[in-house]
Amino acid sequence: MPDIDVDTLTRITREIFTGWGTPEDDAAWVAALLVRANLRGHDSHGVIRIPSYVRSLKAGDTNPKPAIRVEYETPLIARIDGDRGFGQVVARQGIGVAIEKAKAQGLSAVTLRRANHVGRLADYAEMAAGQGLLGMLWVNAPMALNVAPWGGAGRRLGTNPHAVAVPGPDGSIAISHDFATSVWAEGKLRVKFNRGEPCPPGIMLNGAGQPSTDPREYYTDPPGSLLTAGEHKGYGLSLAIEVLAGVLSGTGAATPERGPLRNGTLMICLDPDRFLPREAFNAEVARLLGFVRSAPLAAGAKEILVPGEPEARTERERRRRGIPVEDETWRQIRECAAEVGVAA
Amino acid sequence: MPDIDVDTLTRITREIFTGWGTPEDDAAWVAALLVRANLRGHDSHGVIRIPSYVRSLKAGDTNPKPAIRVEYETPLIARIDGDRGFGQVVARQGIGVAIEKAKAQGLSAVTLRRANHVGRLADYAEMAAGQGLLGMLWVNAPMALNVAPWGGAGRRLGTNPHAVAVPGPDGSIAISHDFATSVWAEGKLRVKFNRGEPCPPGIMLNGAGQPSTDPREYYTDPPGSLLTAGEHKGYGLSLAIEVLAGVLSGTGAATPERGPLRNGTLMICLDPDRFLPREAFNAEVARLLGFVRSAPLAAGAKEILVPGEPEARTERERRRRGIPVEDETWRQIRECAAEVGVAA
Repeated sequence: MPDIDVDTLTRITREIFTGWGTPEDDAAWVAALLVRANLRGHDSHGVIRIPSYVRSLKAGDTNPKPAIRVEYETPLIARIDGDRGFGQVVARQGIGVAIEKAKAQGLSAVTLRRANHVGRLADYAEMAAGQGLLGMLWVNAPMALNVAPWGGAGRRLGTNPHAVAVPGPDGSIAISHDFATSVWAEGKLRVKFNRGEPCPPGIMLNGAGQPSTDPREYYTDPPGSLLTAGEHKGYGLSLAIEVLAGVLSGTGAATPERGPLRNGTLMICLDPDRFLPREAFNAEVARLLGFVRSAPLAAGAKEILVPGEPEARTERERRRRGIPVEDETWRQIRECAAEVGVAA
Repeated sequence: MPDIDVDTLTRITREIFTGWGTPEDDAAWVAALLVRANLRGHDSHGVIRIPSYVRSLKAGDTNPKPAIRVEYETPLIARIDGDRGFGQVVARQGIGVAIEKAKAQGLSAVTLRRANHVGRLADYAEMAAGQGLLGMLWVNAPMALNVAPWGGAGRRLGTNPHAVAVPGPDGSIAISHDFATSVWAEGKLRVKFNRGEPCPPGIMLNGAGQPSTDPREYYTDPPGSLLTAGEHKGYGLSLAIEVLAGVLSGTGAATPERGPLRNGTLMICLDPDRFLPREAFNAEVARLLGFVRSAPLAAGAKEILVPGEPEARTERERRRRGIPVEDETWRQIRECAAEVGVAA
């Protein structure tokens, strides 16, 4: 398993996408976010996606030069049509609009439709937080279903993530969480499957609706399904996300129809300055985090972390020693590179 | 355990609060929401609260005639100071302001501070949904801590609930969830404690930070703590709620200080009409719910429910046969009634 240097991996990724007609700036942005996912330890959202993005470009499902359009706009709301562009490119424009409106009005809501895989929500929530705003995102994927409703056994919901980022002083990020409403993301189960290992109980059901710890029972017919995080709580949140992100954006909610991956997205930004002085906000958030960290440790725990900290640590480590890419993923990326004459 | 008729229980509750100087209309509203919590099966938020509300009125912690004041207002944002009023009374005004602004602008955010226990968030989210809006609420309780941060063992967070209600056609509610970010609410553990029963694993830690199934280890010194729902996911959401609901509202985040119960609240309302035609919204939500219900059943499950349905069923049942009130709670309520000359 090679450790690939960040700049090299970013260049290769960018050049693969420009090789398929993506404008330089957009390709650089998609590459930056894929590599950032690896840097932050979320490899399922990193360069492992390159081959499927390339397949989508080849199939014409991803439009490398989308005419992204604001379909409807008020001083606080915007609906954006991504014209089947890279999700990262559409979401960059979306969060830019949301940030601008929230700075002017204190509050904004922006939806995205006809956007491909947007990647990690934390990236956009943190762009808002970096500008001093509270950033919140909800995302569905109406044709990428893998989660059972509470009490059910079939795949009826996506992993429907939710993210919130809280600003710290001077453009820093105080808190950033981004979680799937399923117990596990599907990628984590696939790793177990590839390694021939069982998963813990409470992660999945098999196709007969029985609890199972055998990932092979997930990838078969009838297929297994993932359980929701926190039982009925994750189910409730996931269902709400189908409406907030899927229905409101015009992407639609979970459906048995098949087609290319589309993410429906809702972004809300809030400006703390409308609620209390910035110094008071920063001081209270810092006090909260200090108080939370002051708890005695649970048995077996080494420390109490704030959401976003594990990612920041992994990034420091991986910037130094490079990004570990599994042999098979690296082989596929080099194949994608060779196809468009990119040195890798 | 007597079954008390809804009208009788509502009258007694209302008269107890008017007996302590609460205006007729406000007392009727608080009584209606407490009894509604019982009707919907959430007894922990129902008339069991009467004695503590009365104690708070006696102590001067709850102000029966608050001068509720909008401290700051724009066409889409309001910050409300509840003047230590009943949380239900302050939140009624808050959601009214949020509904009005969202109808005019498509989106609104309202915070509440210096409000006592607001009760079930679903009630306010459903008031917005009943007006055709998406209603979202986040609430903290900075001095009522019982939940450990992920990896920690001390009480550092409240049960910090989150609620979303989705409108259906003609003033109906299509989906309504309202959940604590802890695995269990504290009241559920207290029931086990009172009955001398153990709780399942994964609910609590004892004061030494060890997993425990003995509720007695929660109610001792050093005290136990509740775990967050979905492990680090509930922790991330709970911490975000400390900021969204506690810090933004001016209530403050979780603190070791002691004092009367205060709920910090953030409400956001969204008008679907700004995003897609109402008929399309209703049709897509209905299609989603039909699709979710069409899943095969998981082993041991009887049916797939939509959040809000269990409550609606309990309400139908309890309207018919009355509300079961435990002997001890009923004794305490009658004591509160006798104290202000109310027939019960």
